[in-house]
Amino acid sequence: MKITAMHVTPIALGDPPLLNAAGMHAPWVLRTVVELVADNGVTGLAEVPGSATTNARLEAARAVVLGRDPFDWHGLRAALRARFGTESQAARGDKPWDQRALVQVESALDVACLDLVGRHVGVPVATLLGGIVRERVPYSAYLFYKHEGAGGDFGFGTDPRATGWAAARQAAALDPEGIVAQARAMVAEFGFESIKLKGGVFEPAQEVAAMKALHRAFPGMPLRLDPNALWQVDTAIRWGRELEGVLEYLEDPARGQEGMAAVRRAVKLPLATNMCTTSFEDLPGSARTGSEDIILTDHHYWGGLRASMELAAHCRVFGRGVSMHSNNHAGISFAAMTHLGAAMPNLTYALDTHYPWQWEEVIAGGRIRIDGGSVALPPGPGLGVELDRAALARAHENFKRCGLRERNDEVEMRKKVPGWTFAQTRW
Amino acid sequence: MKITAMHVTPIALGDPPLLNAAGMHAPWVLRTVVELVADNGVTGLAEVPGSATTNARLEAARAVVLGRDPFDWHGLRAALRARFGTESQAARGDKPWDQRALVQVESALDVACLDLVGRHVGVPVATLLGGIVRERVPYSAYLFYKHEGAGGDFGFGTDPRATGWAAARQAAALDPEGIVAQARAMVAEFGFESIKLKGGVFEPAQEVAAMKALHRAFPGMPLRLDPNALWQVDTAIRWGRELEGVLEYLEDPARGQEGMAAVRRAVKLPLATNMCTTSFEDLPGSARTGSEDIILTDHHYWGGLRASMELAAHCRVFGRGVSMHSNNHAGISFAAMTHLGAAMPNLTYALDTHYPWQWEEVIAGGRIRIDGGSVALPPGPGLGVELDRAALARAHENFKRCGLRERNDEVEMRKKVPGWTFAQTRW
Repeated sequence: MKITAMHVTPIALGDPPLLNAAGMHAPWVLRTVVELVADNGVTGLAEVPGSATTNARLEAARAVVLGRDPFDWHGLRAALRARFGTESQAARGDKPWDQRALVQVESALDVACLDLVGRHVGVPVATLLGGIVRERVPYSAYLFYKHEGAGGDFGFGTDPRATGWAAARQAAALDPEGIVAQARAMVAEFGFESIKLKGGVFEPAQEVAAMKALHRAFPGMPLRLDPNALWQVDTAIRWGRELEGVLEYLEDPARGQEGMAAVRRAVKLPLATNMCTTSFEDLPGSARTGSEDIILTDHHYWGGLRASMELAAHCRVFGRGVSMHSNNHAGISFAAMTHLGAAMPNLTYALDTHYPWQWEEVIAGGRIRIDGGSVALPPGPGLGVELDRAALARAHENFKRCGLRERNDEVEMRKKVPGWTFAQTRW
Repeated sequence: MKITAMHVTPIALGDPPLLNAAGMHAPWVLRTVVELVADNGVTGLAEVPGSATTNARLEAARAVVLGRDPFDWHGLRAALRARFGTESQAARGDKPWDQRALVQVESALDVACLDLVGRHVGVPVATLLGGIVRERVPYSAYLFYKHEGAGGDFGFGTDPRATGWAAARQAAALDPEGIVAQARAMVAEFGFESIKLKGGVFEPAQEVAAMKALHRAFPGMPLRLDPNALWQVDTAIRWGRELEGVLEYLEDPARGQEGMAAVRRAVKLPLATNMCTTSFEDLPGSARTGSEDIILTDHHYWGGLRASMELAAHCRVFGRGVSMHSNNHAGISFAAMTHLGAAMPNLTYALDTHYPWQWEEVIAGGRIRIDGGSVALPPGPGLGVELDRAALARAHENFKRCGLRERNDEVEMRKKVPGWTFAQTRW
């Protein structure tokens, strides 16, 4: 089997004005869809965060990819590294999301090759990762402080006819009451059995109050707060102690492995990270410092599904829990995340997903269903999803029209709060 | 695809009276051949060290294995652990070889399932492990102190008609000159480009003299010495320093991770191990103490080929080199080791193999060729080897006739040196 074509399609999907440590989501989220076509007519899909840099890398990778056997991941990966080198951890950047382009190229090709091989062989991607451990994969509710608005074609407007979660998705949530209302609507719609709040937006006192309000509103529900490393170590210790007995885990309260380790020694609460331990190069430091209890994998940033399985093995050996980080994504990535979750023996926590915040799709059959807080492994070989060509074309048109080429939450935030600037540490 | 039959066949192959830290090899080496047959008629093979305990475990595992899908490794492994539990590291024992039975059961089933899946899909096992990185896998010459004799049907006798390596294989080698002569014959026959001596037999001065003699006889040739942890830390430091500039690496000079780390701090020579870091449970201690530079995997003792790939990923992340340990084995294991070596991107050293010491085979086509010190990946899907039913039957008859049921080099040594006893530390 040889790869004979590689299609790279940038898309934009509507996204509400969600607040986070780096500013505010634009009304559009950018993603890039990658298709590999083999000489037997079989196609493999993948999806990665959209950025002009990543897209240029993917276009440049085509010459390396064409003619290769999708079974030969080691060979393809070595050829990519020979062509592009590797990236230092510094390329990650200081934002809550990872800005490395090459690791995302590797991720896209890993996923698309697995989809291709799975379809060719007739087995699910989770089987290629070692076997299906669970048929349904649990996800967590993912709450955001937000301004009123739905994003996408609606701009910053709202649809007054909306009800239930569709209404709550448009509503503002800027205080503990708003967050609890958002949680009630999201849990009612999707049945989530754990809840995460994206923090790093307001001063710690307000975010801790929101978590306590959620704790009262949802007794016994596992709760998580993610201030995205915007707290100083002493701030994190002070407010972390306030949250003992309230949270399931506290995610990235402080910046860097040393900072995290200092918080972890002082606070009796599991710490999770997708900021201080985000690549294989970080694992020796994690082992040495004891920076976290739980590592949030993200196959887009760890180099693919196979690399994420390697990370899971490391976590098993070094006594770390495993969960999953999420940026906005569409159904291809949701399927890939679900296959990974289905194959990971030591998945110890419900995974993050932004999926409820979007309403569009590019896969056939429309939106993937979240029921009882979990997602069923898509049926059929490979990832189990197909492209809806008309929907993909619309999303690509949106990409061309929207004008965005890189995610920049700071620029977007300034439209709401003139002069706002990102700070690595804020409180 | 479902597994419908599992055959467990103990075999005995002739083995010369090789000396090592635990005593002397019996004239027979025990191995066990495992065959899985699927409902589509496809068969998968594996081979593990022979022992009555392991054979009993394999027989008991059959009820867990039958009816399972060979693609579903996670499911089969979980079922095995649910049935048998797991084994503590203490079960390894203090001998140079690993005495755990369950990990060998997992290894056998991992390899046989991969062979089955590879044959079903039509790809080599190395491809299932991520892709073929090298078509030929380098092995090292493996020298032993030994008494005269060939083993097996020859008992302790020799064949006076033998020439070349066949003659050297029968000859005694009990001093530096004998070791150099053995090395010359083995290198001439197989073209090895690195040489290991199994030490822990004579006092360090004699074994160090043998390494220096090899260094003079083979200038520039990478050399290794393995005293199998029989040296005290201060002995290892003293003689390790003597070997700086002589060896490529020193294998297990002292016992335990702390002992190895102490030697490693004092001696400017890479240290390798298959004794202090031999399971995933040992990896945090390895990272903490810095006990070795190179970990010698052995798929029989790390739980299979997939587990060995996980170990290789760990070695990449934690800056450890990777090589491979070997006990006596036949062609099925040799093929499995070669597929693993072909798929491991960070294989940094030629692998160990006892293969030149045997002369029998149970695979079709007879002995696997070692040329230029390396072995070509067997062609065809799966492991690329088939059973020779007549040869297997002969080897099984030998097993029944020879009377051995567990490896015990101490008992064998006492036939030569009455009252000899194994010691954990000797010098």
